[in-house]
Amino acid sequence: MQLFFTPDLQTEIYTLDETESKHAVRVLRLNNGDELKLIDGIGNFYTAEITDANPKRCQIKVITKEAEFGKRKSYLHIAVAPTKNIDRLEWFLEKATEIGIDEITPILCEHSERKVIKDDRLEKVIVSAMKQSIKAYLPKLNPLTPFNELIATPFDGKKFIAHCYELDKRQLKNEIIQSPSNLILIGPEGDFSEREVEEALQSGCTPVTLGNSRLRTETAAIVACHTCNLILED
Amino acid sequence: MQLFFTPDLQTEIYTLDETESKHAVRVLRLNNGDELKLIDGIGNFYTAEITDANPKRCQIKVITKEAEFGKRKSYLHIAVAPTKNIDRLEWFLEKATEIGIDEITPILCEHSERKVIKDDRLEKVIVSAMKQSIKAYLPKLNPLTPFNELIATPFDGKKFIAHCYELDKRQLKNEIIQSPSNLILIGPEGDFSEREVEEALQSGCTPVTLGNSRLRTETAAIVACHTCNLILED
Repeated sequence: MQLFFTPDLQTEIYTLDETESKHAVRVLRLNNGDELKLIDGIGNFYTAEITDANPKRCQIKVITKEAEFGKRKSYLHIAVAPTKNIDRLEWFLEKATEIGIDEITPILCEHSERKVIKDDRLEKVIVSAMKQSIKAYLPKLNPLTPFNELIATPFDGKKFIAHCYELDKRQLKNEIIQSPSNLILIGPEGDFSEREVEEALQSGCTPVTLGNSRLRTETAAIVACHTCNLILED
Repeated sequence: MQLFFTPDLQTEIYTLDETESKHAVRVLRLNNGDELKLIDGIGNFYTAEITDANPKRCQIKVITKEAEFGKRKSYLHIAVAPTKNIDRLEWFLEKATEIGIDEITPILCEHSERKVIKDDRLEKVIVSAMKQSIKAYLPKLNPLTPFNELIATPFDGKKFIAHCYELDKRQLKNEIIQSPSNLILIGPEGDFSEREVEEALQSGCTPVTLGNSRLRTETAAIVACHTCNLILED
């Protein structure tokens, strides 16, 4: 199924932006009267038909609207330090969007090797994964945020920090049972600093382990994401 | 920690191959008396010291040997159709090795767009991931196998097929509880053919779903891999 992203759709008659118009008319060769499916990223799934197959300003008319399409039962916010190789972060964003996530915050840590990210490029990866996996909700991507700032921000749910130090840690999979809203912090290649772990614990984070394996940053993030979905969604 | 792969290590005195010798002596600048860690891919984890820092034939002496290092409690065999874009299969191999897997069989299906793979390149990805995630067991990678051949091969455990047809399916996470040995079939981008699903059911495979999300081939494979590890290993 081919989905079109229409974030600002408010009215029955709507004009696709130039990119989506070109894709519909030139690439897919859709014409007047042809049906297409639209998502707005805030939970609405539309069936519409083309009323003017203009390759730059394709006009459509909404036929049906389904609200809260594939609405999630729980809320998952993962804060992860961007990887040195940005492909690994982009891969995480694609997979997390496919599997199920609500909010992502790239965090700047003491041991972060990467200190800059291109938000617009990362946003494109998420939109593309949302369309490909037929989801009507667009995960929220926050700008790169300093670690201290993130843990100081109030969160309405349980907060966890996954680190590799030899401290007493709980199993994430056991901690999230009965917890519908979770924030999980995943550190950079060099792990969180001891100071960061200490501050996270003071701010109410529960230290957790994701299992017995030593995982790369992006693998740990996807494992945390899937653990929450497996236990709280399916 | 820097690991060296010594698959044929049998004796107390051993000579690293040219690649590992160069890495130890030229790249890491290790010298006589320096300690290093070795894995043989069949469960042994060694501590050794360099006795001759030759950049082409570095000789080492084993000091300690730990058998069954990180031995898994369950057995996981995933059979997956190689993706059109081989990077996605390589990514799965890397992640599955990190998370935990015993055997992987690339399968050739009716709807497979990719009909050729480079075994040696895929093997390199697995070895690299094994070393990076500090594992002593090398997952077994089988050659590309026709679907019919695979399902005709006897398997000592439960067999599952994850497909997208609207048939009665069980949840994989519920089916594997109490099942220490599992084979899971993951189809190509175009899914398995109806005939393949029918044949799989006749050969004793249980049809399963991996959750509510529509997942890409490599995402479905990693989700299946992590589901088994989360429930049977940690």
